[in-house]
Amino acid sequence: MSETMLALTKMRPGPGVELVERPIPTPGPGEVLVKVKAASICGTDLHIYRWDPWAASRVHPPIIMGHEITGEVVARGPGAKRIRVGDYVSLESHVICNACRYCRTGQGHLCPHTRVLGVDRDGGYAEYIAVPEQNAWPNPPDLPLEVAVLLENFGNAVHTAFAFDVRAKKVLVTGAGPVGLMTIAVLKAIGARAVYATDITDYRVDFARRMGADVALNARTTDVVTALMDITQGDGVDVWLEMSGSPAAIEQGFAVLRPGGQVAILGVVGRAFTLDWDHGIVFKGAEVKGITGRRLWETWYQMRGLVFSGAVDLTPLVTHKYTLDQYEQAFATMASGESGKVMFLIHP
Amino acid sequence: MSETMLALTKMRPGPGVELVERPIPTPGPGEVLVKVKAASICGTDLHIYRWDPWAASRVHPPIIMGHEITGEVVARGPGAKRIRVGDYVSLESHVICNACRYCRTGQGHLCPHTRVLGVDRDGGYAEYIAVPEQNAWPNPPDLPLEVAVLLENFGNAVHTAFAFDVRAKKVLVTGAGPVGLMTIAVLKAIGARAVYATDITDYRVDFARRMGADVALNARTTDVVTALMDITQGDGVDVWLEMSGSPAAIEQGFAVLRPGGQVAILGVVGRAFTLDWDHGIVFKGAEVKGITGRRLWETWYQMRGLVFSGAVDLTPLVTHKYTLDQYEQAFATMASGESGKVMFLIHP
Amino acid sequence: MSETMLALTKMRPGPGVELVERPIPTPGPGEVLVKVKAASICGTDLHIYRWDPWAASRVHPPIIMGHEITGEVVARGPGAKRIRVGDYVSLESHVICNACRYCRTGQGHLCPHTRVLGVDRDGGYAEYIAVPEQNAWPNPPDLPLEVAVLLENFGNAVHTAFAFDVRAKKVLVTGAGPVGLMTIAVLKAIGARAVYATDITDYRVDFARRMGADVALNARTTDVVTALMDITQGDGVDVWLEMSGSPAAIEQGFAVLRPGGQVAILGVVGRAFTLDWDHGIVFKGAEVKGITGRRLWETWYQMRGLVFSGAVDLTPLVTHKYTLDQYEQAFATMASGESGKVMFLIHP
Amino acid sequence: MSETMLALTKMRPGPGVELVERPIPTPGPGEVLVKVKAASICGTDLHIYRWDPWAASRVHPPIIMGHEITGEVVARGPGAKRIRVGDYVSLESHVICNACRYCRTGQGHLCPHTRVLGVDRDGGYAEYIAVPEQNAWPNPPDLPLEVAVLLENFGNAVHTAFAFDVRAKKVLVTGAGPVGLMTIAVLKAIGARAVYATDITDYRVDFARRMGADVALNARTTDVVTALMDITQGDGVDVWLEMSGSPAAIEQGFAVLRPGGQVAILGVVGRAFTLDWDHGIVFKGAEVKGITGRRLWETWYQMRGLVFSGAVDLTPLVTHKYTLDQYEQAFATMASGESGKVMFLIHP
Repeated sequence: MSETMLALTKMRPGPGVELVERPIPTPGPGEVLVKVKAASICGTDLHIYRWDPWAASRVHPPIIMGHEITGEVVARGPGAKRIRVGDYVSLESHVICNACRYCRTGQGHLCPHTRVLGVDRDGGYAEYIAVPEQNAWPNPPDLPLEVAVLLENFGNAVHTAFAFDVRAKKVLVTGAGPVGLMTIAVLKAIGARAVYATDITDYRVDFARRMGADVALNARTTDVVTALMDITQGDGVDVWLEMSGSPAAIEQGFAVLRPGGQVAILGVVGRAFTLDWDHGIVFKGAEVKGITGRRLWETWYQMRGLVFSGAVDLTPLVTHKYTLDQYEQAFATMASGESGKVMFLIHP
Repeated sequence: MSETMLALTKMRPGPGVELVERPIPTPGPGEVLVKVKAASICGTDLHIYRWDPWAASRVHPPIIMGHEITGEVVARGPGAKRIRVGDYVSLESHVICNACRYCRTGQGHLCPHTRVLGVDRDGGYAEYIAVPEQNAWPNPPDLPLEVAVLLENFGNAVHTAFAFDVRAKKVLVTGAGPVGLMTIAVLKAIGARAVYATDITDYRVDFARRMGADVALNARTTDVVTALMDITQGDGVDVWLEMSGSPAAIEQGFAVLRPGGQVAILGVVGRAFTLDWDHGIVFKGAEVKGITGRRLWETWYQMRGLVFSGAVDLTPLVTHKYTLDQYEQAFATMASGESGKVMFLIHP
Repeated sequence: MSETMLALTKMRPGPGVELVERPIPTPGPGEVLVKVKAASICGTDLHIYRWDPWAASRVHPPIIMGHEITGEVVARGPGAKRIRVGDYVSLESHVICNACRYCRTGQGHLCPHTRVLGVDRDGGYAEYIAVPEQNAWPNPPDLPLEVAVLLENFGNAVHTAFAFDVRAKKVLVTGAGPVGLMTIAVLKAIGARAVYATDITDYRVDFARRMGADVALNARTTDVVTALMDITQGDGVDVWLEMSGSPAAIEQGFAVLRPGGQVAILGVVGRAFTLDWDHGIVFKGAEVKGITGRRLWETWYQMRGLVFSGAVDLTPLVTHKYTLDQYEQAFATMASGESGKVMFLIHP
Repeated sequence: MSETMLALTKMRPGPGVELVERPIPTPGPGEVLVKVKAASICGTDLHIYRWDPWAASRVHPPIIMGHEITGEVVARGPGAKRIRVGDYVSLESHVICNACRYCRTGQGHLCPHTRVLGVDRDGGYAEYIAVPEQNAWPNPPDLPLEVAVLLENFGNAVHTAFAFDVRAKKVLVTGAGPVGLMTIAVLKAIGARAVYATDITDYRVDFARRMGADVALNARTTDVVTALMDITQGDGVDVWLEMSGSPAAIEQGFAVLRPGGQVAILGVVGRAFTLDWDHGIVFKGAEVKGITGRRLWETWYQMRGLVFSGAVDLTPLVTHKYTLDQYEQAFATMASGESGKVMFLIHP
């Protein structure tokens, strides 16, 4: 193994990223070293790439980007023992403390000491990455790379789709980006009576339909509220999963939510906004849950159940593949809104 | 409308039943009169037909048999107003009091004043039946008769399958009679990772496989416990739905239930039996729920969601059809163990 | 019984109310006639009295006001049979349809056909009122009038306090009006580890302390967020019950809510307001539930359990008593913010 | 610190125990060394002392007995960092693997690799004990020794009492040994409407009453079923916590359990027994949960909330105190059935 590797690195504050030589990391106590096969791009990566105010306040260069990662374990640090060299793994991106009240009661996704790969510590747009052993999840050898690379992100979809009981219920998904699309597939697999999806581009509306949405609407060109109230014969939807981060979509969602309806929110608005919670939540007796990350580690068991059994097929999600040196094109594709998941092939 | 009708009636205590002329009932306050299209046979009907000790202690002849019924509403009693004449309905067989604590808190299935059609008051193996309006559930006009007649019984399957969260989980169904078979179809529709079924005849084991069981085992010829522990790589099953009423199957179920596992019991054993609950329930931290009837009325909304949306197809369940005068053959078929559901066509 | 009675009636749109002669109502089918012993004043009554925009849009005079009522059953309409003449009852103010999906599944508090006493149909600031039998809840003969009159309102407190598991948890109540005060008493009775209360008058802050709050703070004079984070050693609160309808209190509540915290909202803001739900709900993985009315009928069983067993003592809540002709003084007292519950004695 | 210590040790298979010199343990990686202040006796200890068939099959001498322990941390092994030298701690007796599916999803109480102090590895009837850091829970310095020593055992009571929602409900506790008695105190603190207790000695029945039971019955001299159905006016109990391990008590419990009732079982019967689950569980739609250990680590947070806030007072539970050399008397007292908790003072 050479002593250095190529890594897409944010070298200093400001827009952009560079493909540079970095030392291959040494796995610490309880860690494993993973030779990265593939990594995909998330909205968060775009924020860091563009260096928006959130990124400027959170990220401390130099740092290797990337937190959706699959690869092969090539070495173990002291004390690591459950994951074996040679294992084909997907990585959980949240490194948690294991010691706080949240970590000790099955709520590690809320650990206040969480450090995120590619955000708070070096990520996986690189040839190698070192992570705590517990963050590496072995896959069956024949799992397609396109699926293995998506598991971290798929975990957001599963966490959201599993937030409420959707069996035999009518479910609305606002926002059909990659996570929304995966969520639609999950909802169909777990017995939703009907899945309605909205977004604001025809590309995504069509994609939503292909992923199984019974009805998919372009909110730019359709009066979503009237359409959904018609389709549901005035009943509204039982469950609503908000994945757009758009105040307009949020207003529409509350308008079609039935009394006693349930809402899981993964979408981030990015600012305070005006909400009529009397009518949206209080008088309706509605239930609203915020969703962050994946339940550590329950979501991983759940998503492996869905994917390894064939109940959910993620392969249609990856629409573009690049090598690391094509990063400008990769981020541009991701930014276009006309893609599913965009993936780097590193050591495929 | 003539003033009398033909009805399969238990005229007096003792085995058998008679096809006799009975007055067409008059719907009382809040009731509707249903012209019966079809009715199917349940295990309970067989108990009454044979006049076993349970039937002798519970049923007071003369009584018209039959509680799985579909038909058309032809008249309304005083005060009935939601169901319309002409509606094509399936009937809930449990007539509840609406006044007790259970009825008033969404737990009508536990109402101690319940009177069951065909058991405690006249049933539907007849040309007509009068029932409280709230027991009639309108179907879409194009719902196949084979499905409409099964909804009451299907409600047992849905109540049991919905008792616990099965998403991405490994589920065992012990007993693949008609309700077990419908349950298997539901489990597949709501995202179980794997469904294992056991029974003691090849007919039912094959049927289970056709309804979607990933693994179906004949407990007469297979060591079920060893087989299931192998298939689950020693983990055991997450959820177990007991529908056999067999102490042997119950012992097997507990043996393969994982720690923290969940059990829903619909099967009736018919007598006390020996149980090691220390190992079956206590040390395992297991959860066991008894299931009776359908949740009134939540289960009806749920099952309509599953059936009307096409998520579950019940048509393969009905394997035999008879006219009322062929009742001896119908009960013999039902008793053979080599049938799915057996159905009377009355005014199809 | 004379044919007319005195009743505080909103005779026409506009502020104020009149004490006039009205016909004694005749109980309809399934209804009972109640001779009113006492009635208390709720915030809603003040809105109607003052004729604010909400009242103007909802209430159609002439209508008798009042929805918090206790009295004695003096007659039954046709079909009423469970409640007996002579029963000492408290009244549920929401008259529901019993026929919709919500009513049929234990969620009658969400019935879209609800008609509220004193708002949508004649209320109980009168000598007599007719209500559906199911809205009358018998009390033990020795229950103090001060308690019987409060049960409807107490149901809001129980519904809110029971929305989440508070056992061994730290709970914040924002808003110490009458419902907030009753909620504090409930929280202490059901095992909250600590109860923190905030309001903006010393009168209410003191009252909160007397009802059992471990800490009560005046948000006008104290930096509530800093104080509560100190008291909880930086952990924040586990559960927050919002009963103020104040955007400032809402902002404080989210600031001290711990990750994974739970929020039940009974307070009505009266307008849209600006909310940062990214930080308040999403990143925190928080759970927010709107509360409306009482669970029909689960809450009534629960509150009777709490009150009849002595676990909660409501008698300190009533601070002022008037006769019907003192209504101007009664509403003025209620409007002052320096009262607990204000009560009319009618036929005590 | 001397190199040896006194320890009550089961030196070889067979009845009895010996007070012998043993090496003071060295804390391993992630462990702390605790100087034992006090330890109490559990039923399990009696099984090991007497060397019954269960003990003979499970325990491998030589082993130091004792798993209910409090003391002061005097040293830390490599890597231990959260617990400080000088901390006054209570110990969780279950040492879990932290790596299996159960440990990783907040269900560590079900870890199949659990090793129990005093059963599978050296316990705390000794001057010192080494345990993993995560098993040590710091107490406030002023917590009475009598309370600190009981926390592990109290966790069984909390785990059982918290298994179901008991707010405003009628709860039966069968079995008023030490854990049953602590459970009664918890039930009163968390809002049970009424607590009924049964046992078979007057000593325990009286003790149950002192701990807060509204009704306590001696099942040897009272027809418990008739009495409880009378007291509940024929309704039966909502929740039943079984802590006796007695088939007779189990039969009584099911007889008074209402339809839809809930049962948590901590009591171990020690053998298979005859159960009519059709009537006990199935037709009633009852819910039965097995309880084992404490939820790791949720129960510890909960019980500290209850105890540190003063909601539950455990001090009346300890009725006898001995020094280690009085162990024969201590075990005899414990075996007599006429004691609360029996406690060894070691370095008080």
